[in-house]
Amino acid sequence: MSTLGTKGPVLIIGTGLLGASLGLALRSGGIEVYLDDISPTSLLLARDLGAGQPRPQEAAFAPSLVIVATPPDIAGQVVLTALEEFPEAIVTDVASVKSSVAEVVKNGATEQQITRYVGSHPMAGRERSGTLSADVTLFTGRTWVVVPTDRSTAEAILSVRTLASDLGCYLVSMGAAEHDRAVALVSHVPQLVSSLLAARLAEAGDLDLELAGGGLRDTTRIAASEPRMWTAITMANAPQILPFMKEIRGDLDYLIGALGELSESESLSSTQATVTIGAGGAIAKVLHEGNEGVARIPGKHGGAPQSTVEIGVALTDRPGELSRLLQAVETAQVNIEDLRIEHAPGQALGLAWLVVAKTKAQYLMDYLEAAEWRLVAA
Amino acid sequence: MSTLGTKGPVLIIGTGLLGASLGLALRSGGIEVYLDDISPTSLLLARDLGAGQPRPQEAAFAPSLVIVATPPDIAGQVVLTALEEFPEAIVTDVASVKSSVAEVVKNGATEQQITRYVGSHPMAGRERSGTLSADVTLFTGRTWVVVPTDRSTAEAILSVRTLASDLGCYLVSMGAAEHDRAVALVSHVPQLVSSLLAARLAEAGDLDLELAGGGLRDTTRIAASEPRMWTAITMANAPQILPFMKEIRGDLDYLIGALGELSESESLSSTQATVTIGAGGAIAKVLHEGNEGVARIPGKHGGAPQSTVEIGVALTDRPGELSRLLQAVETAQVNIEDLRIEHAPGQALGLAWLVVAKTKAQYLMDYLEAAEWRLVAA
Repeated sequence: MSTLGTKGPVLIIGTGLLGASLGLALRSGGIEVYLDDISPTSLLLARDLGAGQPRPQEAAFAPSLVIVATPPDIAGQVVLTALEEFPEAIVTDVASVKSSVAEVVKNGATEQQITRYVGSHPMAGRERSGTLSADVTLFTGRTWVVVPTDRSTAEAILSVRTLASDLGCYLVSMGAAEHDRAVALVSHVPQLVSSLLAARLAEAGDLDLELAGGGLRDTTRIAASEPRMWTAITMANAPQILPFMKEIRGDLDYLIGALGELSESESLSSTQATVTIGAGGAIAKVLHEGNEGVARIPGKHGGAPQSTVEIGVALTDRPGELSRLLQAVETAQVNIEDLRIEHAPGQALGLAWLVVAKTKAQYLMDYLEAAEWRLVAA
Repeated sequence: MSTLGTKGPVLIIGTGLLGASLGLALRSGGIEVYLDDISPTSLLLARDLGAGQPRPQEAAFAPSLVIVATPPDIAGQVVLTALEEFPEAIVTDVASVKSSVAEVVKNGATEQQITRYVGSHPMAGRERSGTLSADVTLFTGRTWVVVPTDRSTAEAILSVRTLASDLGCYLVSMGAAEHDRAVALVSHVPQLVSSLLAARLAEAGDLDLELAGGGLRDTTRIAASEPRMWTAITMANAPQILPFMKEIRGDLDYLIGALGELSESESLSSTQATVTIGAGGAIAKVLHEGNEGVARIPGKHGGAPQSTVEIGVALTDRPGELSRLLQAVETAQVNIEDLRIEHAPGQALGLAWLVVAKTKAQYLMDYLEAAEWRLVAA
């Protein structure tokens, strides 16, 4: 971070996880950082962690950039106050839902003030919150969505883009409505659906759960997320989430209709399930549409879905076994696109699934077999 | 496989992926295996792969064990025929839904025949089907559910348990109804929900999908499964799947009600989202129930959920980087419970998330930092 383009001084308002982490990262790049927070405890804690100095109170204080990192429900109001107090500063906020903030700014700011505002959404992990969890690398390698309004100046946009790229983020630019719809689709709706699915496990017997495989684990992993934060996000973005949830309900009704028809035909003729063509077609349709949807998710590096295959390798459950496997892959000079580990319940054996380009798969399989690794069927 | 307990000869009826893989595995352990299939092509292909010999047609042929590995909709009928033709043999089938098969057997078999039947569900991956995909390791490390009827003899049950354990499987025992309910909950319902969620992505813009993170990828991974096989499974187990899907619809209706209330209040007072306490509570309830459900999934080795944490490490996207990281972990003598890789779209940097026991986390983090790995915040 020796060549930062961001011009100081920067004022960060709100010294929770995001604000304090921003301070740490900017200061590690030599930027002059000042902090403000309505909680004196949080402010001093952030200062002690090295995130910056409490802001000076004199009228001459003139930051180049103000970053509002308060809770989202007051972000708009805080942005307005900052635009008013610092008539030269560029102002951004890091709330994860953008339309409501932009609305407050549009309705409350003057013509000149509004041009200096650009929204941000750094998509950094937030499983833990609070100043004490601040981390200088919180933003490294994450996507930062820059959300200008139709009134933002090029200078203001550039300033926020420079900030994001100084922090090691990958930049994406979108309007507020477009952003909120996108995060509803790729983040908020999956979160809620995962929770709805995982809630069913409350009724599971212990033995039922012994049959749980990678599919259940994957689909319910994010159901472990922090409810308070996700309630706030869901509430803020309800208008964008609602249509998607209604679509899911439409498809679910269709599926339940088919399942009901099949259950009935089975009880009528219990020795041989009657094949109900219409119901089978309805189920197949749901599964096909799922195939088409998942195929749209870009592969690594944001490109088109890559043509990859999974190679399964049986592992004994000793430290180092996986490392030895990856050394073998390295020696074969094949790049691993992804990797997941599957454990058989109740026993020590594990399976490692190496995701590699289709073009490299046969070569790698032959190589690993020759090196006496035990490949398993996909 | 030098000490197999299974007594031959074994007759396998149906030489697709499962049947041919069973033949390969049993023969690799020195068991005498015979094959049957209504498709002569599939039968000869399985023989040429080394899965066994076509069954002799003479009356003296008397297998000790018959494994029915036909498509599930005819499995019951084929079990009946086998019980009739081989009056001394133990007969099992490997269909993934058990009640319908058991029903056919109970309704069609004599008192003596019924005692020799025990159902099986080897939970082996089946993304690809067909004889040519057969693999001697298909069952290694997988769970095999043994599903006796209330009439199965101890000898018949032992014979099927021995088969499963010879194949390297982890054994679970359940009744047919209990089995079908369990797989509905931990496998069929997650599959359908994942498909319903992924179907929404058909409407996504390319830019929307650039915001996709690990949560979307995890929740929709199994939506890429083969629709034909899953349609058959869903149809066969509709009566067990239906109640869970109805429960999800109930919760979804509740959530949609809350989202609707919030969307309305926002449009009434667009400058400041009105906090609707009831609606927020409804959303929080759904998220909390998700937390409780996911906490019930057993950790590695089938035990209680383990106390693990994720440690994030930034990686450059070169072959060998991950291997070097795991070597470092090995040198630190810490066992990795799980591992996942996250790629930032559009850039080469990746994050590796090491899942380790909570008790080892601080030590490993200190160790990796000392070795100059770049740790990132969770």
